[in-house]
Amino acid sequence: MVGRQQRAVRTRELILEAAAEVFDESGFAGGSITRITERAATTQGAIYFHFKSKEGLARAVIMYQAAHLEGLPQKPGGLQQLIDLTFYLAHELQRNVVFRAGVRLAVEQGEAGLSEYSIYQEWIERFRAELTVARAAGELLPDAEEGVFAAVLVAGFTGSQVMSQIASGRADLPERIASLWRCLLPGIAMPGARDALVLDAERHRGWSC
Amino acid sequence: MVGRQQRAVRTRELILEAAAEVFDESGFAGGSITRITERAATTQGAIYFHFKSKEGLARAVIMYQAAHLEGLPQKPGGLQQLIDLTFYLAHELQRNVVFRAGVRLAVEQGEAGLSEYSIYQEWIERFRAELTVARAAGELLPDAEEGVFAAVLVAGFTGSQVMSQIASGRADLPERIASLWRCLLPGIAMPGARDALVLDAERHRGWSC
Repeated sequence: MVGRQQRAVRTRELILEAAAEVFDESGFAGGSITRITERAATTQGAIYFHFKSKEGLARAVIMYQAAHLEGLPQKPGGLQQLIDLTFYLAHELQRNVVFRAGVRLAVEQGEAGLSEYSIYQEWIERFRAELTVARAAGELLPDAEEGVFAAVLVAGFTGSQVMSQIASGRADLPERIASLWRCLLPGIAMPGARDALVLDAERHRGWSC
Repeated sequence: MVGRQQRAVRTRELILEAAAEVFDESGFAGGSITRITERAATTQGAIYFHFKSKEGLARAVIMYQAAHLEGLPQKPGGLQQLIDLTFYLAHELQRNVVFRAGVRLAVEQGEAGLSEYSIYQEWIERFRAELTVARAAGELLPDAEEGVFAAVLVAGFTGSQVMSQIASGRADLPERIASLWRCLLPGIAMPGARDALVLDAERHRGWSC
């Protein structure tokens, strides 16, 4: 038997996914509550009950992006895993509408009147954890700064996906991520470690999470 | 005496500047033609005469960004000038509303239904010209690829300004650009050349254009 609370959780998910679809298609301003209501086959009352406002709904879609990625490895693994992770995210942007909408809203949040930096901070911390493992494994240059590099990597990824979206509907994103790594690796990796690293957009498929 | 054609040019500029202000404040969807009309103290007819549609106006604001920067050096000068150029752009984003609106619309162009990659291409070419001079001066690593690096630099700048806008209203943008360079220089500059380069956010003020 499905209880009331469990139904509420499922309704909330349904609304989030419908909102992600609509925001992905039309952005924040163009994505009306009416369309989201229709898409989720729910009521406006349910949307306002769960999310208070359209801004609250956009914020939830932004924050949902990281939690929704089921293919993420549980434990940090160092530089190669960080590289694979960025290709995995590129792949998810191409095929996962909730992630895509979350990233779009995170970039265009001026439209939503939001100022939600915490999602960028989450990705910086996630990347930094890989670098901490890399440091312990002797993969990093002595003067490389993990926190600085992690933030620059998030910035490079963000800009790459904005440009790839416009240039090719994100089809060339893996290629752009490979270019980003070719330019960034000499500033972070020990020459010996660098030679062993592979820029392969499909390598994340081998993860057993 | 001011002729009719000259008045038309001035009206077009007035509209562009008013549109930039409104888009900078409210984004594309939130910036109505009515508000732009009021801000420019002109008529809707004049706006549609010069720009055909709101989308046409947004496109013009995007393309206006590079032309409007009066402080750009005329001739490419190599790696130090490329560094100074990125700090100059960071400074212009903080103080120049037309540039800021153009960059915002270029990033959020999904909202405007545009797909205008040429402005990114223009910046890639501008940066690449500096790298061509740097190559001739022996500043670049033998295996560095100028075109790839120029595109990655545009991506890194774009992502940095998106994150800086959300984190600090762009106050920390120069610091983020310095971090970007610290991570990127080892992959592009010869060690000898790198030691002579300065990451100084104010150095562009010494340009005599």
